[in-house]
Amino acid sequence: MKKFINQTDDFIVDSLKGFAKAHNDLVKVNLDPIFVTRKIINPNKVLLVSGGGSGHEPLHTGYIGKGMLDVACPGHIFTSPTPDQMIAAIEQCQPKSGVLFIVKNYSGDVMNFEMASEMIEFDNKTVLTNDDAAVINSSYTAGRRGVAGTVIVEKVVGSLAEAGGNLLACKDLGVRVNHYCSSIGVALTSCTIPAAGKPTFDIADNEIEFGVGIHGEPGRKREKIKEANLIAEDMVLAILKDFDEKSLDLKGPSGILLLVNGFSATPLSELYLIYNAVAEKLNQKNIHIWRSMVGNYTTALDMAGASITICLLDDEIKKHWDSSVITPNLRWGNGYV
Amino acid sequence: MKKFINQTDDFIVDSLKGFAKAHNDLVKVNLDPIFVTRKIINPNKVLLVSGGGSGHEPLHTGYIGKGMLDVACPGHIFTSPTPDQMIAAIEQCQPKSGVLFIVKNYSGDVMNFEMASEMIEFDNKTVLTNDDAAVINSSYTAGRRGVAGTVIVEKVVGSLAEAGGNLLACKDLGVRVNHYCSSIGVALTSCTIPAAGKPTFDIADNEIEFGVGIHGEPGRKREKIKEANLIAEDMVLAILKDFDEKSLDLKGPSGILLLVNGFSATPLSELYLIYNAVAEKLNQKNIHIWRSMVGNYTTALDMAGASITICLLDDEIKKHWDSSVITPNLRWGNGYV
Repeated sequence: MKKFINQTDDFIVDSLKGFAKAHNDLVKVNLDPIFVTRKIINPNKVLLVSGGGSGHEPLHTGYIGKGMLDVACPGHIFTSPTPDQMIAAIEQCQPKSGVLFIVKNYSGDVMNFEMASEMIEFDNKTVLTNDDAAVINSSYTAGRRGVAGTVIVEKVVGSLAEAGGNLLACKDLGVRVNHYCSSIGVALTSCTIPAAGKPTFDIADNEIEFGVGIHGEPGRKREKIKEANLIAEDMVLAILKDFDEKSLDLKGPSGILLLVNGFSATPLSELYLIYNAVAEKLNQKNIHIWRSMVGNYTTALDMAGASITICLLDDEIKKHWDSSVITPNLRWGNGYV
Repeated sequence: MKKFINQTDDFIVDSLKGFAKAHNDLVKVNLDPIFVTRKIINPNKVLLVSGGGSGHEPLHTGYIGKGMLDVACPGHIFTSPTPDQMIAAIEQCQPKSGVLFIVKNYSGDVMNFEMASEMIEFDNKTVLTNDDAAVINSSYTAGRRGVAGTVIVEKVVGSLAEAGGNLLACKDLGVRVNHYCSSIGVALTSCTIPAAGKPTFDIADNEIEFGVGIHGEPGRKREKIKEANLIAEDMVLAILKDFDEKSLDLKGPSGILLLVNGFSATPLSELYLIYNAVAEKLNQKNIHIWRSMVGNYTTALDMAGASITICLLDDEIKKHWDSSVITPNLRWGNGYV
């Protein structure tokens, strides 16, 4: 294992301390229990709370700020946070318009966020994300896994909450965006959990894991590496099949959002190369790409690999996608802070 | 070698095609010869032209747009672009206020940009960046190497050019920002050039290369890996010594900009961990961090590792740092496009 690290047990706290210092204009980090909030909380809006195991940065802490999340609760590496973190964060915020939890569909996260939901005195609802088209059940999951589509849910719902949308409207929009998202990932290498000290899985120099999860969970198949164009074609076909099964038509005039997401160790130049292959295939199918994102948005520690996410759009989602967002790792629109 | 790639010879063009499609609201890519420009060129402002070998993305193409570069000329991987690329790009832009070349100090780049400078009919000047404090001369360099400080030069000078600054003012500001920047890098792994197909250098599982260049050039020393806090301390000491030798005082009230830059394969969580260690050491020395950047801004293909850059500030540099910038990979301030 080769990492910038001090003591294994201190990894998350050391990293969060750096995050807090680097972005002290936008966020505040609490260390006992661990949670991260916007620097200034507006108690009158719906409070958006996410979280999950660490190791997927910038998800979720990097998306705290104006027009996106209010709170994120990081767990240990690839391990769910616990209800005391969520409860302490929410009690500090004293929300007057309710709490919306945005939770990736992993059994540990679902259980812990459900417990927090039952224990807090504030009105609350939950959006579960499960955009990964790769497999039905998985190592840590009953049902589909929540992956990079979660970023799109957080951005769009964050915009509605910022604009004053109520709790039910925020939940309904989140459920719709998640339904409109489909993702699939490919790993070239394993990730290494610091406390384990060795790769999560073995993979040969000429192999890829097609449909991998963001914790290194097995996907659909282990196969020989091939040209990126052919890998991208398989990824597009898997996603198009998923939209077919959902009876959602990607060819409408509203178009789609295309996210090519790196798992951490894949260079930007390779992500753009994948983007090119995917975009050509979508163009051949008369699917209009309205907005694009290419970069490391939902990672898997130090894994080399990438996922693609397609999000079907409508006018409301487009409006909330383009609205101003000011977070450590997603920033556009009006205003500096 | 394990990469998302089709044919080795097509790597750069495949990647640039994806870049062009993903950011067609901001940039235009010309493929023969290869150059990238802003989608809409303002011929009345100083034209900012950069470029260099590919493999450092998002440098330089990702910094084209409002408030930063007008043109970037990518060469082959780790190989200088040629004068025909620069000349074709500049002739297409027909600048009326002159051309400022921003060139990292590598012998090939210096030679090729000098040739372009002599061959174009437009008034022009050059800023050479050489912020790497690691070594005096290197594999591809006479004098110090230009590394991640180049991003800061491009942002600050880009702002002045956007605001109507003239050619001499832009050059003078660029020279000052470069003088005010000092960087040092550490590699945990080698990078692999696609055409070579194997790592550029060998490094043991328990070793780091201190002072590495962004092409995998040797640094100051090969040493055993140690706690990140200790690595960060060595990096800070190297940079502080460099500022001492330049007789520049970092303790003034204007403060500094701190960039913790990933070389590609190092996760964001580790970069924040380094940030924390560096910030603590600067705080102990009463050096004020005014702005921070943490992420992959100047990369070395698929290398794991990181660099830190400190830029001393003054009022003019601060104003131009905070001004609006809208490029594919750096974006803040007012306006969506």
